Order: sequence, then C-alpha cells, then structure tokens
Amino acid sequence: MTTSDLASRISNRDRRAVARAISLVENDSPEAGELLRALAPRMGHAYRVGITGPPGAGKSTLTSELTKLLRSQGKTVGIIAVDPTSPFTGGALLGDRIRMQEVSMDKGVYVRSMATRGSLGGLSAKAKDAADILDAAGFDFVIFETVGVGQSELDIAKAADTTIVVLVPESGDAVQAMKSGLMEIADFFVVNKSDREGAEQAVRALKTILTMRITHAADEWIPPVLQTTASKNIGIDKMLAEIETHRDHLESTGKLALRRKARERERVRELVEAMLRFDFWTQERSTLLERELDEIMAHKRTSFEVARELVTVSRNA
Amino acid sequence: MTTSDLASRISNRDRRAVARAISLVENDSPEAGELLRALAPRMGHAYRVGITGPPGAGKSTLTSELTKLLRSQGKTVGIIAVDPTSPFTGGALLGDRIRMQEVSMDKGVYVRSMATRGSLGGLSAKAKDAADILDAAGFDFVIFETVGVGQSELDIAKAADTTIVVLVPESGDAVQAMKSGLMEIADFFVVNKSDREGAEQAVRALKTILTMRITHAADEWIPPVLQTTASKNIGIDKMLAEIETHRDHLESTGKLALRRKARERERVRELVEAMLRFDFWTQERSTLLERELDEIMAHKRTSFEVARELVTVSRNA
Repeated sequence: MTTSDLASRISNRDRRAVARAISLVENDSPEAGELLRALAPRMGHAYRVGITGPPGAGKSTLTSELTKLLRSQGKTVGIIAVDPTSPFTGGALLGDRIRMQEVSMDKGVYVRSMATRGSLGGLSAKAKDAADILDAAGFDFVIFETVGVGQSELDIAKAADTTIVVLVPESGDAVQAMKSGLMEIADFFVVNKSDREGAEQAVRALKTILTMRITHAADEWIPPVLQTTASKNIGIDKMLAEIETHRDHLESTGKLALRRKARERERVRELVEAMLRFDFWTQERSTLLERELDEIMAHKRTSFEVARELVTVSRNA
Repeated sequence: MTTSDLASRISNRDRRAVARAISLVENDSPEAGELLRALAPRMGHAYRVGITGPPGAGKSTLTSELTKLLRSQGKTVGIIAVDPTSPFTGGALLGDRIRMQEVSMDKGVYVRSMATRGSLGGLSAKAKDAADILDAAGFDFVIFETVGVGQSELDIAKAADTTIVVLVPESGDAVQAMKSGLMEIADFFVVNKSDREGAEQAVRALKTILTMRITHAADEWIPPVLQTTASKNIGIDKMLAEIETHRDHLESTGKLALRRKARERERVRELVEAMLRFDFWTQERSTLLERELDEIMAHKRTSFEVARELVTVSRNA
C-alpha cells in the first residue's frame, strides 16, 4: 500500500489503517514522516485530553467511563494508553486490558497501548504522533492516559489541550502531587475513589494548596477540584462538563492556539535532539568513548572532560 | 578561593567547601569542571546506595534511620535528596526537612537537597557530580534518596552501587512497581510500614513476581525482599546487612567495576547530549524555529519536516 492509499484509508477511519500507521511511528519506520506529512492537512480538529496521576489512582477506569459517556453523546474517541513496560510482563497488565476491552469493542472507539520500551523521550514523541494520526482519522476526542510521575509521562500529559490530574483520597496524596510536579500541569483535579474515607479532606487540602497560587492575570484559570468514583460511574458527567468549560475558556481567551503552538515548539525541539543524538553516535565516537572510559575509571580524567573532547573533536571534523 | 584551595578543603571534609562545590555544580558554574578534575584522583572510595520508591513510602525516614545506624558504626554518610520542586513551595517540604535535621546536626553526616528546577535530565547529571564531590570529601557512604517513578529519578537511583526500592504494604503496590519500572532497578526490596495490614501479602506478591524472572547466570543476584518499619526503627539492621551482602556479591564477582563503568558511560553520553543541545540552539536556529511554527500550525508542514530542516541546515553550514 502506498503512503497516499494509507492516508486516505486513515481519513475514512479504517481501523486497520490506523493501527498500521501507529505501528509505523512506533517502529521508527522511514515511511512515518511521509505519512504524517500526507495527513497534516486533516489534523487540528480533535480535542486532546490528558488523564494522569500516580499509579493506582484509577486512571484506566476513569478513561473508560469518560469514553462511554462521550460515546453516548455520539462523539468518537481515540485513546492512547502509555504504560511503562516491565520485562516481566512485556506490556500493560491484564486488569487494565480487560477494563479497556469493554470500550474497545465499540467501533467509535480506538484504543492503543504504547509501551515504554527503550527511551522514554522517544515514547513521548511517538505518543504525540499517534495522537496526530487519530486526529487525522477524525476522532472527536483523543485521550492520553499516562502514569504521571516522571518527566516524560508529564510531557505526554502536557501534550493535551486539557490535562486532568487524578488523585485518591489517601492522606498525603495532594502533598505528594505537589512534590512530583503534577500540580503545575493540572487544568483540573479529580479526587477519584471518593467513596473512600478522607475524600472531603483531600479536596480541601488541594483547594488550600491551590489558593496559595498567585493570580497573575484576569483571565487566569483556577483549576477546580472534582470528586468521582469511577468504578461506580459517579461524577463522570461533571468531569466531562468541566472539560467543556475548560475548552470554552481556552477558546474564548485565545489560549488554545497558544497552547498548541507551545506544544509543537516543544515537539520540534525533541525531534531535533533525537536527530542530533542519532547523528552523533557514530561507530568512531562510540569506540573513542569506550577507550576513554578506562581513563575515567582510573580517575585520570573526568566524564566532563571526555564529553567535551568528544564534542570538540566532532566540531572540528 | 582558587579551585585547588577549594579542592584541598573538600579533601579535609570542610562542610562549607563541600556546600560551595555542590552549588558550583548546581549553578552550572564554569569552575565546576575544573574542580571535579582536581578532585578526580580522590574519588572511588565511597559506596553509593540509592533509596527509591513511590511517593509516601517513607524513604526519608528510612534514609535517616540507616544513616544513624551507619554513624553508630563510625561510618560517615553523605545524603543527596532529590525532591521535585513545586513553584508553590520552592523546594523540599517542611516535614522531610525536619526529619532530615535530626541526622544533619551530626558532623559525620552531610545532607544536600537538590531540587528539580528546570530540566530533570540536568538534575540527574548534577546529582552524580554532587555524589562525586561527597566521595572525594571522604564520606564512606553516599545515599541518593529519590522519588522513583520517572525516568530521570530512575537514572539517579541507578547511579548507585546498591539500589533499594521501598514499597508499602497497600494492595497493588508491588504490581504498580512493575508498571513503573522499579522492578528492574532493585537490588533488593524493602516493604516499609510493615506494621500495617497486608505486609506479608505484599512480600509474597513481590517474591512471586521475582520468581518469574529467568535466571541467566550462575552468579545472578536474586533481589531479596525485606520488611521494615522505619518510624519505629525496626528492620534497619537487616537492611544494612543486606547492603553489605550485596556489596560483597558485587565485589567478589567483579560486577562492581562493570557497574561503575556502565554508569560513567551513561554519564558521558548525558553530558555530550547536553552540550550538543546547548551548542545547537543558537539565536538563528531559534528564530528559524519560530518562523516555521506558523507553518506547522497552519498544517502546511509537519514538526518532523521542520526538525529535519533545522538539523540539515546546520550540518551544511
């Protein structure tokens, strides 16, 4: 199949074509660039939602329930689930897969699990490419579901128009969210599993922390805090309403375009750096590094000196 | 003060000199490289321990208790605590600071908190430099305490000779550890807060998961699982004994030298990439990127094309 055939099948939301396209991206296939080029004019319509939070917060269940609600309103949904891989499991865990299966039997839903094999930085770029493919395929919503504690996972969450941080009522979760960088990326918070003890206190704690934030502008968005119990389908309607409210805010203030532009800027930078890295590590330089490592181990040179030498030699080559 | 004065004061474990040296590293000061060069011959004696795990597992308390035990045996300890920063707090949270203070009043202990301002990748490099400085200052042990869920935090944890993954008994923690990449880096596990319900089950779950791992070599290390209740000083002696057992294993099999070499290799690569990045983003290229961003936003070009152009133009310049 030619790239243009594939692109036109993707435009018709052909599931197999979408799957194949994401695989091309995932495998760093040379056709991926051309395909994304062909799809570019069709992109920009999907609204992107990031759902992130610490492990065990119930992100998959929330994603499934939100998807069902969107479907009941006739919206189509693409889901990109980013699960760090373990060599023990080779991918997502069974429980999540079963939960996802419920929604993924639906024709208006496309679920793709992406694993963090190899470089996490690379994953972040690939997840964004996959979102672009789903966007070009005409899905109304694209949801990124990621474990939100590492930098790369935060990068993916930030690649959304609306980013939701999911926490559980357990004591200290709000405080831990502050420590792990989740506070800064949240457009709103969801305290999930709110049928557990401590939910009210967790909401109060979050709100207290949020009031410490200094308001810089009249049109500043103050992240609300919602409660859900996704496993019982409680609060999902309010969550969707909040997504729509945030979307209206972004659109009416012109922030949506700015946010998307910042996202593309970041993306070009990531790609450039991946290319520089790839171009840099030739066989010669890798060999030179191995030789110099012995000097470092003998405490005769420092890693900084060796790095500087590798870069300088390359510049003069 | 000249670099060589500073280096000689560090060799005498002068606390203010150590603090100043780490600040030079933290602030990307140009003297940092020279200083590390001067200290290099004194490095390689400290044993490095990484203590990592999800937020709320009690890593700080474990670190404090382990430090007290090491001190009672006459060992000196340098601690590098890596806390993601929030703009709300500007650094580590009060609770941790108070806990740390207990040990940090001791002259044989040096505690340094490093915040994740700016790039996390950069932080990882800086934490390793700080460990080198503490090593050169003659501390017997250097402990990295990090939140262990993101790639960069894992990088820091991996910069240790022995890496300990701390979990709590709550259901699912072991499973979540698998998902977040912690299983792969653990030399042993500690189920902390073992006075809580579910500790035995958590230990069993971990052991079951570990038995799934295929043994490749006769001298393969199988990560043990210990129980502690750090807040009551229970199990800390066993934890230290396990560190010593693992150290003996690494030394007797020759793996310690290999591990340290792999660490330096990774470090040179990180430094090279930071330098490439720094050199690449000139004013001209940044301006070109901004211009092309408008094309991307209009869906006339893809981020990949723009990245490729930026890199190609630079190569031909």
